[in-house]
Amino acid sequence: MFAKITPRREDYSKWYTEVIKQAQLADYAPVRGCMVIRPYGYALWENVKASLDRRFKETGHENASFPLLIPKSFIEKEAEHVEGFAPELAIVTHGGGKKLEEPLVVRPTSETIIGYMYSQWIQSYRDLPVLINQWGNVVRWELRTRLFLRTMEFLWQEGHTAHATSEEAQEETMLILDLYTDFARNEAAIPVIPGRKSESEKFPGAEASYSIEAMMGDRRALQAATSHYFGQKFAKAFDIQYLDSNHKQQYCWTTSWGMSTRIIGGIIMVHGDDQGLILPPRLAPSQVVIVPIYKKDAEKSAVLECVKKIEAALADDVRVKVDDRDEYSPGWKFNEWELKGVPLRIEIGPRDVKKEQVVLARRDQPGRDGKSFIPLAGLSEVVNDTLTSIQNSLLQRATEFRDANIHEPTDYDSFKAAVAEGFARVWWCGDSEEEARVKEETGATIRCIPLDGQGGEGKCAVTGRPAKEVAIFSRAY
Amino acid sequence: MFAKITPRREDYSKWYTEVIKQAQLADYAPVRGCMVIRPYGYALWENVKASLDRRFKETGHENASFPLLIPKSFIEKEAEHVEGFAPELAIVTHGGGKKLEEPLVVRPTSETIIGYMYSQWIQSYRDLPVLINQWGNVVRWELRTRLFLRTMEFLWQEGHTAHATSEEAQEETMLILDLYTDFARNEAAIPVIPGRKSESEKFPGAEASYSIEAMMGDRRALQAATSHYFGQKFAKAFDIQYLDSNHKQQYCWTTSWGMSTRIIGGIIMVHGDDQGLILPPRLAPSQVVIVPIYKKDAEKSAVLECVKKIEAALADDVRVKVDDRDEYSPGWKFNEWELKGVPLRIEIGPRDVKKEQVVLARRDQPGRDGKSFIPLAGLSEVVNDTLTSIQNSLLQRATEFRDANIHEPTDYDSFKAAVAEGFARVWWCGDSEEEARVKEETGATIRCIPLDGQGGEGKCAVTGRPAKEVAIFSRAY
Repeated sequence: MFAKITPRREDYSKWYTEVIKQAQLADYAPVRGCMVIRPYGYALWENVKASLDRRFKETGHENASFPLLIPKSFIEKEAEHVEGFAPELAIVTHGGGKKLEEPLVVRPTSETIIGYMYSQWIQSYRDLPVLINQWGNVVRWELRTRLFLRTMEFLWQEGHTAHATSEEAQEETMLILDLYTDFARNEAAIPVIPGRKSESEKFPGAEASYSIEAMMGDRRALQAATSHYFGQKFAKAFDIQYLDSNHKQQYCWTTSWGMSTRIIGGIIMVHGDDQGLILPPRLAPSQVVIVPIYKKDAEKSAVLECVKKIEAALADDVRVKVDDRDEYSPGWKFNEWELKGVPLRIEIGPRDVKKEQVVLARRDQPGRDGKSFIPLAGLSEVVNDTLTSIQNSLLQRATEFRDANIHEPTDYDSFKAAVAEGFARVWWCGDSEEEARVKEETGATIRCIPLDGQGGEGKCAVTGRPAKEVAIFSRAY
Repeated sequence: MFAKITPRREDYSKWYTEVIKQAQLADYAPVRGCMVIRPYGYALWENVKASLDRRFKETGHENASFPLLIPKSFIEKEAEHVEGFAPELAIVTHGGGKKLEEPLVVRPTSETIIGYMYSQWIQSYRDLPVLINQWGNVVRWELRTRLFLRTMEFLWQEGHTAHATSEEAQEETMLILDLYTDFARNEAAIPVIPGRKSESEKFPGAEASYSIEAMMGDRRALQAATSHYFGQKFAKAFDIQYLDSNHKQQYCWTTSWGMSTRIIGGIIMVHGDDQGLILPPRLAPSQVVIVPIYKKDAEKSAVLECVKKIEAALADDVRVKVDDRDEYSPGWKFNEWELKGVPLRIEIGPRDVKKEQVVLARRDQPGRDGKSFIPLAGLSEVVNDTLTSIQNSLLQRATEFRDANIHEPTDYDSFKAAVAEGFARVWWCGDSEEEARVKEETGATIRCIPLDGQGGEGKCAVTGRPAKEVAIFSRAY
């Protein structure tokens, strides 16, 4: 039997970890801060990967693979980059039984080694743009870790592009930010806010960093992906030059961008409830689970025969799982698949077989509200429509929740109240020292300068000074 | 322009490296023994992955992800395992700016960490079998490295399964050996010999190791994948126990198996010629390349219009690439796509447009023999048939080459001559000391005890003693 999950109101963080462990998404590894992604969690990640990868390829990107181990001196070539990453490095000092002459770093991110290779590959403007993505693992020595959200090793994709002009590199940065926004909304059903990072929250070595920010069920923020514009900083550090059409040597303009297994933490926290996960249909490993119900052996064959037909009818369009295990009761199975967040359940018993109908139960509407009797004829269409409806309603629900918890305080007292219980969207004077003070006093940071907040001016909610930009402050994961 | 590739006869090893670099499959990294897989090579690997992954899933396996870093003490728990891998380990001694209490090992393979997790997850016979695969990277401190064939870091899949009985684990081991054999033959067009490894060539810690062995273009052997039966050795080292249906604690029976990016080296060496790669259609990133030919601008639009139509007609079934770059001549493009091993080229010029035909050029039949005029009507069918024909003919050619170079010497003198120029398939007495002597004297090792050589008896070709098994000896990569 499953242990009862701690309700979210009681202890959100405990609820989060219990859901992950009981739904068998992941487990802590015997190495501090590391995680094992179990098959159910990995199947979810495979769906995330596939739908991101499709978007990358449609926009002209190719995948490649660069080394895990990077000479330590590489990390030190870009001053801000080393400052940001040096404290988080895992260092290989011995190999093949010998001490290494130069230690190697387990990649925390790959700008440096990829920059080096680009300097070898790129000669002429004809070689540009270079649009490469890598799916892989990275290691950052995090002290406080949490499954999916912050682990010492994590899986991700990191895109690295090189361009002939600043404009093109900036367009790429924004193209990818849009791509991530689209993925989050339309696949993960997470309404995210795209925006620019403040100077203090920028990626080490970037000219400008952008992110998409999501609101979790406890009204804290999660940075769900980032897209960085490097200008010529890395090109100069790694000598990535090309001969332009006028036969002049020029430095390239580069970008990088990434989304990681962290997004799974976001999916859990945006949609989950006290029964467990609720997975958006477009990413769910199983979109529909069929649970046959029978008491006597005499009923079994008729029910299972009908189940097989339904499975066959659905399998072309839908990821469907039949749970015909004999060692568990239907009630136990209902609980398990609710915990695992399967969007739609089909129940079918002997009476349903006779009536040529099934019971359809929506995971996003627990209890009687989400149940309906559906005739077998035309079931396939109803299932498809219902999955679309669930996908839409998850996005709508998350959007309403988020919008209800974005406050627009105009002075510091109401600002403090706002960030204690949600996002504060405020006029902001842009002073980095004030930003640090806010963080110390409230725990809130600037999540982003939202793209939709451009133009106009107002009074800074923190300092009262004149302000030309809008910022979103929140406590964050 | 491309540099001319060294012919295979002149220097096979140089030919190999030049093909890889010029076809942009991969490049050496600035870290000793490490490789960068470039987009073209990675696209090939993605096709390998997809077709293996499909086979794994069809046989009930699921993917998961385990940590990259493993406590050093884990590697030491199984005596033979540590003896085999200790000399090849990359060791992380520092993390987050501090010296670690216990060093971590960058995984050389994951039996130990996965064994530990299985000991946590598996309680009862109901939890069995566990059939998990991992796609990832591993690091082995190799001294002599070669692109794809032996690199310090490589990409692979490693399956790890746990079973309730010895029979089931042995069946799994053979199921996977068959799966690899099927993949090699039917996707990579490589006729492999499945067999058992000798005691001295076994995986460290295995009860029995099996492999598939392929013959390269220089008549040396390549071990293309392995499948290991561990008995209860790892289960005992990592305490993987289950309660059987009689309420008794039992140790599990485990297996592991893997195929790596090494297979790409095999594809290059089995099929390539002095013009470069020849990729089997089922794995080729592009199966067909269309090269439009025109001299005057007036011709261009009519040709490109026709190209678009052909592309659209083919794109549903076939991975097709249109090379409409203006900065390169058709001849240059022919060379490039030949080098890159695209199985089929379509050439179309203004006269072809008028005649409603194209030229089809097969990569596996260079020159005039492989060229034919095909009417536009019905092109799609001809293309599909020709791709099938190329796939089959690559397998047939490789099989004929291999069979012509398998010798069956009956005494040691002819044995030495045989392994100097191919495989020796011989009666073998099974003496490990003699095996070591053969290796020292001839450089040849037992590639496998082939599964099709069971039964009967004869006279050992090496020692003249009575022999009950057949072995294949060869020099190997």
